[in-house]
Amino acid sequence: MSSKAMAEFIGTFILVFFGVGSAVLMGAEIGFHGIALAFGLSIVAAAYGFGVISGAQLNPAVSLGFLTSGRLSMAEFLVYCVAQILGAIAAAGVIYVIASGKADYSLVENGLGQNGWGAGYNGGYNLNSALIFEFVATFLFVTVILGATQSDAPLGFGGLAIGLTLTGIHLVGIDVTGVSVNPARSIAPALFVGGQAMEQLWLFIAAPLAGGLLAGVLHGAGITRSPHVR
Amino acid sequence: MSSKAMAEFIGTFILVFFGVGSAVLMGAEIGFHGIALAFGLSIVAAAYGFGVISGAQLNPAVSLGFLTSGRLSMAEFLVYCVAQILGAIAAAGVIYVIASGKADYSLVENGLGQNGWGAGYNGGYNLNSALIFEFVATFLFVTVILGATQSDAPLGFGGLAIGLTLTGIHLVGIDVTGVSVNPARSIAPALFVGGQAMEQLWLFIAAPLAGGLLAGVLHGAGITRSPHVR
Amino acid sequence: MSSKAMAEFIGTFILVFFGVGSAVLMGAEIGFHGIALAFGLSIVAAAYGFGVISGAQLNPAVSLGFLTSGRLSMAEFLVYCVAQILGAIAAAGVIYVIASGKADYSLVENGLGQNGWGAGYNGGYNLNSALIFEFVATFLFVTVILGATQSDAPLGFGGLAIGLTLTGIHLVGIDVTGVSVNPARSIAPALFVGGQAMEQLWLFIAAPLAGGLLAGVLHGAGITRSPHVR
Amino acid sequence: MSSKAMAEFIGTFILVFFGVGSAVLMGAEIGFHGIALAFGLSIVAAAYGFGVISGAQLNPAVSLGFLTSGRLSMAEFLVYCVAQILGAIAAAGVIYVIASGKADYSLVENGLGQNGWGAGYNGGYNLNSALIFEFVATFLFVTVILGATQSDAPLGFGGLAIGLTLTGIHLVGIDVTGVSVNPARSIAPALFVGGQAMEQLWLFIAAPLAGGLLAGVLHGAGITRSPHVR
Repeated sequence: MSSKAMAEFIGTFILVFFGVGSAVLMGAEIGFHGIALAFGLSIVAAAYGFGVISGAQLNPAVSLGFLTSGRLSMAEFLVYCVAQILGAIAAAGVIYVIASGKADYSLVENGLGQNGWGAGYNGGYNLNSALIFEFVATFLFVTVILGATQSDAPLGFGGLAIGLTLTGIHLVGIDVTGVSVNPARSIAPALFVGGQAMEQLWLFIAAPLAGGLLAGVLHGAGITRSPHVR
Repeated sequence: MSSKAMAEFIGTFILVFFGVGSAVLMGAEIGFHGIALAFGLSIVAAAYGFGVISGAQLNPAVSLGFLTSGRLSMAEFLVYCVAQILGAIAAAGVIYVIASGKADYSLVENGLGQNGWGAGYNGGYNLNSALIFEFVATFLFVTVILGATQSDAPLGFGGLAIGLTLTGIHLVGIDVTGVSVNPARSIAPALFVGGQAMEQLWLFIAAPLAGGLLAGVLHGAGITRSPHVR
Repeated sequence: MSSKAMAEFIGTFILVFFGVGSAVLMGAEIGFHGIALAFGLSIVAAAYGFGVISGAQLNPAVSLGFLTSGRLSMAEFLVYCVAQILGAIAAAGVIYVIASGKADYSLVENGLGQNGWGAGYNGGYNLNSALIFEFVATFLFVTVILGATQSDAPLGFGGLAIGLTLTGIHLVGIDVTGVSVNPARSIAPALFVGGQAMEQLWLFIAAPLAGGLLAGVLHGAGITRSPHVR
Repeated sequence: MSSKAMAEFIGTFILVFFGVGSAVLMGAEIGFHGIALAFGLSIVAAAYGFGVISGAQLNPAVSLGFLTSGRLSMAEFLVYCVAQILGAIAAAGVIYVIASGKADYSLVENGLGQNGWGAGYNGGYNLNSALIFEFVATFLFVTVILGATQSDAPLGFGGLAIGLTLTGIHLVGIDVTGVSVNPARSIAPALFVGGQAMEQLWLFIAAPLAGGLLAGVLHGAGITRSPHVR
């Protein structure tokens, strides 16, 4: 495995370990506010730990934005996506094993931090709300990422800015969808939980990718890009 | 639309999407502390995503401070204000659509994160308290912004400092007025909610603008400006 | 008033407006965690807004550490202390006026965010605990400040580091004393509240000054200072 | 005591004073979310206060990672570990004295923020979960630290990134083990509390050291290190 693939693998492992892990193991204690913080801080950890190796994209929707804005090759995009999904699955597996060490934990009843919508899922928002939230939030997220990492953005601040942006997004949407904005983050728990999580997985692949695609196209076209950057 | 106007439009969209969105969709879960964080982090997102394009002012009261301290032209001020208000309205609309996807959401009963005061609004503070809080808080906010972005301030830290300052202001005043310090942030939900929100809207335009004006004049006169900056 | 005195006045106003303000107006909503954040973020606001003017010391115990480590003259020390205390009093006055706009607010019953100890004050810790906490916490705080602002510390990070340190200190000690580590922060509400707050005020002047003094002496002697800094 | 040993002593004192102190004195008020923040902010404080002196490692598992990746000598490693453990013990002692000033505090019933697992400890997770969590979390923590402090990482951001990473780890694991990832942090309260805390102490020495060792070896071998760094 290349150095970049390893960085995306461990980085996305951190994202799911912190984010999904906090939801599964500590959600009852720290609430949605704490989970929102854990997701954001996972980006901070990975960005400063691995940013100089791979850029710490950790998310196929983000990598799609880099691809369509011309800052990532198709070959690297595919390697990144595979590494991200495998890292997410590995972390979900570790969280599952740790959770299983609690007497009253049940995968069926407690889940594994999967995304969703509709009656019985968090606030019970409908499909329409879930779709709009995931599309808009991912578009904003990837637009901020592309802007904060362009060549004339303040050097070194990207990791903090992007992580705190992800926390902000979670503070808006956990009740709506649990917040994906990242297909890798959604695929991993769905593979373990199955059932409704698998049936609803399409949205958490399609909407984030569509949001990331639009962000990449607008940035590539110069509409959301600094005029000083070619 | 110019590149700067687009940046102010999307940036203020992020401010209202995160801030008002967290209050409407997640307020019951994350409390005032979480809402305070969401407002602040929206500034961090916009500042690092769009700061190099437009300065990410996101707020007519802030732009008035830049105007009166001589760092923004009147023509740009007007463009900025229009873009900020339109961005805020667009985001409030998206939040309203998402909220409507929850079975028990009602615009009349749950509102849309509008500002206010008096009996029935948050802590029930009177007009006098609301006026003083909004004026003082905006004066401090815009003074910090002008100081943190002057030419000899530490490079790159402005976005974090200003965002965290807005969080601090929300930790003081959500119970008093819901915290505006930003006419665009107040106009948008008032247009949807109408009624008392529209009747009280004048304060959330007048007090922040007065605070921003005073901050700009004092900074422009050198009283709150670094002596090393012309 | 000199530019530096004005910066210390407004900066300490921000500290008390955010910190004491959040406790008085929002304490019941945001809890000790939120108050801890508000105190820390006030430092971030003042440091980036005014740091290039006066250093944003905001605290006589901090200024004493700068004096005794040889980084502030006696004349400046005295000016700083007066400006800090006046800024704190002004902010406490504004908070009092805002609080009075709530129907059920009472200065006698709700107080004004004053420090204290003993039965009836927060966790009911005794004098001994209060004294040790304030001395140790101020020593650590001022030692971190002197270290984070010495000439070979990473440029620009001081404001964030120092603000977050103050939040950390509040996360330890609000139940013990309400956390002073700053005579100006304690003097202001005591003047309004009187009674026990005035009787116990000596500790919140003496212990922080002793902690700041020790920190300054050790730093000045090179024991906690970078060997690369003269 | 050398300047570096003094920095590790005071730095680890801060870690335990903030982290363990917040748990013991404020845990009931601020919850696991607040404790997680306090641990992370202690790193921020020590990193910017003492980083230029000793690197602010504050943790034998971290120092082991620096040793095995070739960035710390064996002699320094031993001095660092002794200073870290002594600093942790001193801070636990001060917290114990402060806690004793509360009428209803009892070392036997309330403990001193010790780590643990099994029935009666936080979430009641079993040994297997504790072992996996501590090993994986320390591996990730030390990997991020080594990456964020390598020569081509963004200058100055290490302290914030590492502190926020530690907060993220606490948001995942306080219910599992109370979170050690640091033998010094675990040894100190166990010495005071004795009993089960001493019996379970081996895990909080062995698992963090194993995680730090693996992180150091992989980083030293270039697998998780930037290819631009020799």
